[in-house]
Amino acid sequence: METKLDLIRQVKTRSDSKIVLLVMDGLGGLPIKPGGATELESARTPNLDELTLRGICGLHEPVGTGITPGSGPGHLALFGYDPLRFQIGRGVLSALGSGFDLKTGDIAARGNFCTIDNDGRVTDRRAGRISSVKNCELCERLRKIKLPNVKLFVETVKEHRFLLVLRGEQLSADICDTDPQHTDVDPIEAGATSDSEQAGATADLVRRFVREAREQLKDTHPANMVLLRGFAALPDWPTFPDVTGLRAAAIADYPMYRGVAKLVGMTELETGGDIDQKISGIQEHWSDFDFFFVHHKQTDSSGEDGDFDRKANEIEQVDAALPRLLDLRPDVLIVTGDHSTPSALGAHSWHPVPAVLWSRHCRPDRVERFGERECLRGGLGPRLPTTDLIPLALAHAQRLDKFGA
Amino acid sequence: METKLDLIRQVKTRSDSKIVLLVMDGLGGLPIKPGGATELESARTPNLDELTLRGICGLHEPVGTGITPGSGPGHLALFGYDPLRFQIGRGVLSALGSGFDLKTGDIAARGNFCTIDNDGRVTDRRAGRISSVKNCELCERLRKIKLPNVKLFVETVKEHRFLLVLRGEQLSADICDTDPQHTDVDPIEAGATSDSEQAGATADLVRRFVREAREQLKDTHPANMVLLRGFAALPDWPTFPDVTGLRAAAIADYPMYRGVAKLVGMTELETGGDIDQKISGIQEHWSDFDFFFVHHKQTDSSGEDGDFDRKANEIEQVDAALPRLLDLRPDVLIVTGDHSTPSALGAHSWHPVPAVLWSRHCRPDRVERFGERECLRGGLGPRLPTTDLIPLALAHAQRLDKFGA
Repeated sequence: METKLDLIRQVKTRSDSKIVLLVMDGLGGLPIKPGGATELESARTPNLDELTLRGICGLHEPVGTGITPGSGPGHLALFGYDPLRFQIGRGVLSALGSGFDLKTGDIAARGNFCTIDNDGRVTDRRAGRISSVKNCELCERLRKIKLPNVKLFVETVKEHRFLLVLRGEQLSADICDTDPQHTDVDPIEAGATSDSEQAGATADLVRRFVREAREQLKDTHPANMVLLRGFAALPDWPTFPDVTGLRAAAIADYPMYRGVAKLVGMTELETGGDIDQKISGIQEHWSDFDFFFVHHKQTDSSGEDGDFDRKANEIEQVDAALPRLLDLRPDVLIVTGDHSTPSALGAHSWHPVPAVLWSRHCRPDRVERFGERECLRGGLGPRLPTTDLIPLALAHAQRLDKFGA
Repeated sequence: METKLDLIRQVKTRSDSKIVLLVMDGLGGLPIKPGGATELESARTPNLDELTLRGICGLHEPVGTGITPGSGPGHLALFGYDPLRFQIGRGVLSALGSGFDLKTGDIAARGNFCTIDNDGRVTDRRAGRISSVKNCELCERLRKIKLPNVKLFVETVKEHRFLLVLRGEQLSADICDTDPQHTDVDPIEAGATSDSEQAGATADLVRRFVREAREQLKDTHPANMVLLRGFAALPDWPTFPDVTGLRAAAIADYPMYRGVAKLVGMTELETGGDIDQKISGIQEHWSDFDFFFVHHKQTDSSGEDGDFDRKANEIEQVDAALPRLLDLRPDVLIVTGDHSTPSALGAHSWHPVPAVLWSRHCRPDRVERFGERECLRGGLGPRLPTTDLIPLALAHAQRLDKFGA
């Protein structure tokens, strides 16, 4: 038994039951004054409170105690994949985040436009953080570069950052970063980090790209050079539908979350950005899937903006939309986050994430209101590994056989 | 990702924040009458209670559920090292406990003076527990032994126990115990437990030492022979400052705790035995270090003596000293123990250890008083692995980046 996924795969069984995983990104929070309430605790959430009365609550940790999850690891954990074991290469993460349709065999890398001096030494690794508009112009130039037998994609991400993708046969991601991480030194020459023929050939292509990029950018100071890092290909992981037996749909409007869901084999459904549109999406496809991952971004963005009231308000809006979701009569509903984003910190944090799991087979605990401190008393405990949520959802959906006779 | 230490090393980042880990040895306790309070619960601890109101509480387990930790494993766990993975050889532990300045390459072993009969068979493995004074005389004799190219150290520990250290080039710790663990049999001949040339040569030296020790002790009945066990060298572990990025100081007056702290690369500061002297030590070196491990022994010794009231009183003395520590304005303060030593048992025990972590970035729980039963309701949960305390301290000190984008 290598991972919990193998165990799930082994005991899964058929059922017509339906599971909804509703993720309020960055849900967990902190008080902004001593002795005060968190965003969730101060929000009016009658529907979530009703759910906690009949469900089971707790707090979970996506990566580990004290570790602040990025969006990728946070969602992988929610999908049941241990993020320390299933690590997404940074180039792939960039591709997912910018909505690029990465194919098997593609090699993706993060790119920076940077500034070099007349001697070729890096003087600013971010080229003074040029505008995204300027970035688009420069990407246009880089797209003129031709490499033999390889299709090249250069996509603007934001400010000085772009995405580079090489598509072709027999490419390798075993390429070192060209970003020296310091100024006053030359960019590092792209080299193979393994002995394979593919790595050697791919390194040749990357060196040629960099050389031609320098030529294309020679008169575009301050953004007159590129730095590349995090070369990676799509991983070859067990898929979520295969492991769980669930036909799984992702309803998310932000590319990163669509991307991570797609990475584990979920089907992306088109959707607008607000929660009501997303619930309509579930409604429309109710009979086509067994599992719906629904992602709500604004709880995280308001937390990152340090806006306590807006975050509480976002939570209230999701709460208000819940009855329409419950009308569909899912067998299991989990409402939680992928990490905490306390507005007091204006950033992702390590604090455990509140969760409620409702099904008619729950053994109720004594939690009466959905909030961080209340959840401490819940049946899921104060520090559940996030990867345990999917096994629990499957169990409550009566989709797992017993282990052993 | 092999261990949590590797993860911490990977995500650590720079900060000026300061962390204090205050360890009351053997802190956890038990009631001495049914329905009664523990030592900690019965102590008057207004300052610790104030800390719990604003901090996060719980109980932790150093080695594993049901396992009683020794002092070494208990402290390793507090420092973030899994004691099942990072095992200190018993010879090394003896050296640490007796304050011997063990160097890299030294081989240390535990020694017993024992009694043998005329046929050379062991009749008493502890030589009737001779006095420490007698032990000193006998060690003096053993120091006369000369071995080629090796410097020999023989140090009294207590009663029948002594420490043997061999210092030289190319020595090996792969030597079997000579202690047969039974009486009415001969001592075991020292032999190599690996095929290396070094082990063979070291075994020769140890056999020669044992032979000459028997000669030196031939007229000192009942302590007329030695038994050796637990041959070990200093381990080659990642250091605490390297893993965490913290300049770390240890303020402890007992050799064992200074020794374990030194083993993981902390700097030992000289200190007197009482808690006020130790806090003065922190004060004096406040700007030189980022992390202070402060050790208070008397809570354990009073527990081992079965003295409930003295243990409660020791806790009150630490509580009374806390305001001086808080005046230094640490960013994170943890107050806890390395294991439980209930005076009802008069010994270390397996019971989880109460802990409070305070920082301004805590998500407060509902614990209002520092005590074992109150801590059960705390945000750290009832059975946190002790090794998670350092990651939590680093997180609250904002010394960890997020994992993954």
